[in-house]
Amino acid sequence: MSRKAAKFCRESRTIRTSLVLPPDTNNYGTMFGGRVMFHIDDIAAIAATRHARTSVVTASTDSVDFLHPIRNGQTVCLEAFATWAHRTSVEVFVKVVAEDMLSGERTVCATSFLTFVALDVNGEKQMVPEVIPETELEKFLFAGAPARARERLAKREQSKSLAERFGADSMWHLNP
Amino acid sequence: MSRKAAKFCRESRTIRTSLVLPPDTNNYGTMFGGRVMFHIDDIAAIAATRHARTSVVTASTDSVDFLHPIRNGQTVCLEAFATWAHRTSVEVFVKVVAEDMLSGERTVCATSFLTFVALDVNGEKQMVPEVIPETELEKFLFAGAPARARERLAKREQSKSLAERFGADSMWHLNP
Amino acid sequence: MSRKAAKFCRESRTIRTSLVLPPDTNNYGTMFGGRVMFHIDDIAAIAATRHARTSVVTASTDSVDFLHPIRNGQTVCLEAFATWAHRTSVEVFVKVVAEDMLSGERTVCATSFLTFVALDVNGEKQMVPEVIPETELEKFLFAGAPARARERLAKREQSKSLAERFGADSMWHLNP
Amino acid sequence: MSRKAAKFCRESRTIRTSLVLPPDTNNYGTMFGGRVMFHIDDIAAIAATRHARTSVVTASTDSVDFLHPIRNGQTVCLEAFATWAHRTSVEVFVKVVAEDMLSGERTVCATSFLTFVALDVNGEKQMVPEVIPETELEKFLFAGAPARARERLAKREQSKSLAERFGADSMWHLNP
Amino acid sequence: MSRKAAKFCRESRTIRTSLVLPPDTNNYGTMFGGRVMFHIDDIAAIAATRHARTSVVTASTDSVDFLHPIRNGQTVCLEAFATWAHRTSVEVFVKVVAEDMLSGERTVCATSFLTFVALDVNGEKQMVPEVIPETELEKFLFAGAPARARERLAKREQSKSLAERFGADSMWHLNP
Amino acid sequence: MSRKAAKFCRESRTIRTSLVLPPDTNNYGTMFGGRVMFHIDDIAAIAATRHARTSVVTASTDSVDFLHPIRNGQTVCLEAFATWAHRTSVEVFVKVVAEDMLSGERTVCATSFLTFVALDVNGEKQMVPEVIPETELEKFLFAGAPARARERLAKREQSKSLAERFGADSMWHLNP
Repeated sequence: MSRKAAKFCRESRTIRTSLVLPPDTNNYGTMFGGRVMFHIDDIAAIAATRHARTSVVTASTDSVDFLHPIRNGQTVCLEAFATWAHRTSVEVFVKVVAEDMLSGERTVCATSFLTFVALDVNGEKQMVPEVIPETELEKFLFAGAPARARERLAKREQSKSLAERFGADSMWHLNP
Repeated sequence: MSRKAAKFCRESRTIRTSLVLPPDTNNYGTMFGGRVMFHIDDIAAIAATRHARTSVVTASTDSVDFLHPIRNGQTVCLEAFATWAHRTSVEVFVKVVAEDMLSGERTVCATSFLTFVALDVNGEKQMVPEVIPETELEKFLFAGAPARARERLAKREQSKSLAERFGADSMWHLNP
Repeated sequence: MSRKAAKFCRESRTIRTSLVLPPDTNNYGTMFGGRVMFHIDDIAAIAATRHARTSVVTASTDSVDFLHPIRNGQTVCLEAFATWAHRTSVEVFVKVVAEDMLSGERTVCATSFLTFVALDVNGEKQMVPEVIPETELEKFLFAGAPARARERLAKREQSKSLAERFGADSMWHLNP
Repeated sequence: MSRKAAKFCRESRTIRTSLVLPPDTNNYGTMFGGRVMFHIDDIAAIAATRHARTSVVTASTDSVDFLHPIRNGQTVCLEAFATWAHRTSVEVFVKVVAEDMLSGERTVCATSFLTFVALDVNGEKQMVPEVIPETELEKFLFAGAPARARERLAKREQSKSLAERFGADSMWHLNP
Repeated sequence: MSRKAAKFCRESRTIRTSLVLPPDTNNYGTMFGGRVMFHIDDIAAIAATRHARTSVVTASTDSVDFLHPIRNGQTVCLEAFATWAHRTSVEVFVKVVAEDMLSGERTVCATSFLTFVALDVNGEKQMVPEVIPETELEKFLFAGAPARARERLAKREQSKSLAERFGADSMWHLNP
Repeated sequence: MSRKAAKFCRESRTIRTSLVLPPDTNNYGTMFGGRVMFHIDDIAAIAATRHARTSVVTASTDSVDFLHPIRNGQTVCLEAFATWAHRTSVEVFVKVVAEDMLSGERTVCATSFLTFVALDVNGEKQMVPEVIPETELEKFLFAGAPARARERLAKREQSKSLAERFGADSMWHLNP
């Protein structure tokens, strides 16, 4: 597996703007967390593919804090780009911004890091290009990536151990 | 704000079973991470509401590791229940299980913890009942909750600081 | 075609819980009958597949009475399981319960029986396991199955005869 | 409650034509029963409203036999009209026709009768106009309506009794 | 490529009736233009296929004027049929009518012409039957078709030239 | 009605990137024209709102030529911005680009102009800011706007006259 030439963060930059509609919102007229998560993964997967130029599958989503509600009638704008790459995996940063359409005021409502694994047509892992950060934000996010990767590894072990210990057999409602 | 009587984990237990269809899956026929996240938040919000018996909004989603792919034609089954409560917030655990329909084999594909804030009709925070764990799994998850809560607080500060430092003003494509 | 070992009703038990949202409801804020029917068939097909462990297609839906409205903001919970099997077909019972999220009150809003035919990968009919009822409800539903099967046969003849008599040729708007 | 002037069947005639797409179909490329049921109720509700010129809610769906599969890539065409009315309720007949787009061949895949209750803005029942059948099919369906209404009444009693006997309290997974 | 026998406009006539729901409408409760466009193309494609009895792809949509709003709770009814055919392409006319469900009043909200290209299974262009207009409206639309075709050709050249001059390379946000 | 300060094209720039999925595509794996139209109107409405900072409704969509197919598995990227404004209406230009995810090759598949009317909370028309073009493309599009506006006026008269002449009363299938 040979490595492709390194790429700038901006080469994978991906943007999506959508109006928030009634089916996206709860009783308080604020967007369901799950709809936000759906957009985050979707846009991040496109950014990861633009970086790797192979198919990708989501390996993990870091924790997401919903800092401000996104309201019915507002516009939600997501911006994603690759921040780091290591062998066959890419880390993508996503920023979720709500825009009040009348005032034009914008608020960062959530940020998230996701990791993706690059695969060829047979589903075999593929080496991905390295990431070259340029702006201050890109450099800051790039610098923090190895620490996040280590933390993710530890989390994944916990996750696996939890899945094994209280696994599918413990689907109580199917195993009386 | 007075506190309601404590409740068992099983009182908030919520289950959803769905068939995985073509629009849910990528080129490899495996379910998009974002669709899984959508279901996780959705089912967790119902479990949190069953515990609190008030409206709730998502405050955070812990990291999610996708341990195994969920495939087109499989059934995905999510099981959620409240694991811990603290003043006005509820922690919910979600287990995502894929079932091969022909063999009946089940695999835990992901697990997740989410937190929700309970609100009254005016959007004011509401006290929620405490959680009483009964089974081994419930007790294990309950015991780990305070540590997860501390970690979440730290993450939220990082998240806020990131949002402030590289905020909406840095939406480069709208600020030439 | 050899028969597989008989199975308990609980082995096919399938549950789905969903929040009722604005696009699911009419001017009175009550869930459209068609959305309920959609969920009923969907969940019943999973239960039938869990019993047969083959693919299945819907053969018929018995009549459905909407006994109580299901309201916007409520949670709808469907529970389905195989109640009877005969050669290559399975009968599934579905119960639709609405839950008021604040009071926790639950109401049975509709019940339904559906039949499915088990098929192999070539679309050939497959023998299905017999059903073993255990609880009072399961035994009651099992006992009534042969009578329902006879009634269904009669209905199907009427249905065929109606389709033949006033068939596709009578699509008046396409045949001036 | 005064009665409005009687109306012809054709005045409520409602038609919907849709292409069958991958998310509508199962492993065999045939349309899910639940999608068909969804369309049936949807189109029948419009026909009932055209007859009553009030809002309506579904009271019941008679049994539906799936006589022929509807395939991916075919067009499904539904035709509905009011066949009978009694005080505050309307009976609607729906015919579901699949059309092969290359050959133009059309097949009746299912037929169904539904009943709706007419409501005013406060949700109070409203008298509906009588139905005047004109064509042979309309007269045939009109003539059979009182018998179907009696059968429906009996079914509804069974349905209620089943709901009461094994009611919401028997949601086993929520009542350990 | 031999030509099939000419067909009447009514042989391709296609109708779709749908209730306008909250997710279809903006803050004023009027249907989004994009939802209307979606229905227009969808129904026109079925009409074009009924005329050509081959697969078709959209070549162009003429301008659409939204003459009257379509409101939440109204029913939108689209009627489409082939108006003209030339070698391998079909022109389809679509009329969009809103119906107030209580008064029964109907208003034409938009009209549109679309063109489709007929393709065989390998994606090769296919000759289509000529169109035979019968009614006054059909004859009027048929008579205007050659002029519309010429205008479309001119527009397409402008469109191509615009695409070439300020092409994908000018996707400023991906090419810093 | 006083006029707000003029705005640059880039202040209304709006971008949406989406993966093309199976339900978006026909038998040839190319995106339905109607899905493209839906995205075009949706993104253009956000751009118009960003320019006007009021609510807007679609007044018209100019003709759209589908120059190249957009394929299943590709990414579709739309870019929209206000090109011209006149009293209470805004003209928006939309460019639709398909991106092959493996090669990164991008193709302009369609372009479109739409007009929107700005409304206040009571649905009254509102004056909108003038547009200031900066780049070569923006200036080119701005310069052509008055001619397009005149052509649109003429088309609208034709459209109205067609709607009146063969209006809702000619919904043949509802008026025997």
